[in-house]
Amino acid sequence: MDARTQTFVTGQRVAHLATASLTARPVVVPICYAFDGENIYSALDEKPKSTDVRSLKRVLNIQANPQVSLVIDEYSEDWTALIYVLIAGIAEILEPGDGRGEHLRAVSLLREKYTQYRSMAIESRPMIKISSLEIKRWPSGAEAPAK
Amino acid sequence: MDARTQTFVTGQRVAHLATASLTARPVVVPICYAFDGENIYSALDEKPKSTDVRSLKRVLNIQANPQVSLVIDEYSEDWTALIYVLIAGIAEILEPGDGRGEHLRAVSLLREKYTQYRSMAIESRPMIKISSLEIKRWPSGAEAPAK
Repeated sequence: MDARTQTFVTGQRVAHLATASLTARPVVVPICYAFDGENIYSALDEKPKSTDVRSLKRVLNIQANPQVSLVIDEYSEDWTALIYVLIAGIAEILEPGDGRGEHLRAVSLLREKYTQYRSMAIESRPMIKISSLEIKRWPSGAEAPAK
Repeated sequence: MDARTQTFVTGQRVAHLATASLTARPVVVPICYAFDGENIYSALDEKPKSTDVRSLKRVLNIQANPQVSLVIDEYSEDWTALIYVLIAGIAEILEPGDGRGEHLRAVSLLREKYTQYRSMAIESRPMIKISSLEIKRWPSGAEAPAK
């Protein structure tokens, strides 16, 4: 990934995550996320309502079918200035207290990016990890507007 | 759908559309769209690049599997003010010159909402129609912030 794409993916505040059931029924939701340069992490809080996070459709879908799609984009009324990064990856549910400290590290990343998480108990909840990322960016370097 | 949800869906400038292949591989992209109170229409232009619209993944997916998911949302750093409308529907590819004038009517709706389309030849291209909409809104009426 080039530095410009990495900066864009790291800095954007919201992404849209699509999962699909085994019967190929997709569902897309907005998510907050953190990117560590290799993987994407998304906490399982349900904003604004609270619910059992394990019953969320995206969790059930990921457990049945780990193929996911994520898009990070910035809309502009100047359609020559539209940017989007499309990411395909493999998702899993990461549990608190995993042996490698990965969950804790992801909680730190999320709280660094979103101050809102500092008062939420995301450290005691499962989260989504997306790895094996295949990343495409529009416009690509050659087509990028000169600004 | 209540009036507030209808106003929100009609007025937002961008939605995110998830389709899935028959092998349950999802893909999500940002789209511009128009809503006529019953169906959603989205032109097949590829912003910012141009390509053969029939080779777009979303088109191939819809032709194999018409189940789609759409989310229309507004991000806010105040997480008590987040709004999103989740729509499940059945998609089809609507061809120019369909007998009922539906394609022409959708082109008019799109051009009324997006002035950008007035100089683009969307009338000669297929578009996506999404019908049989099942709509859920967060927060629901009872949970809506009092503002």
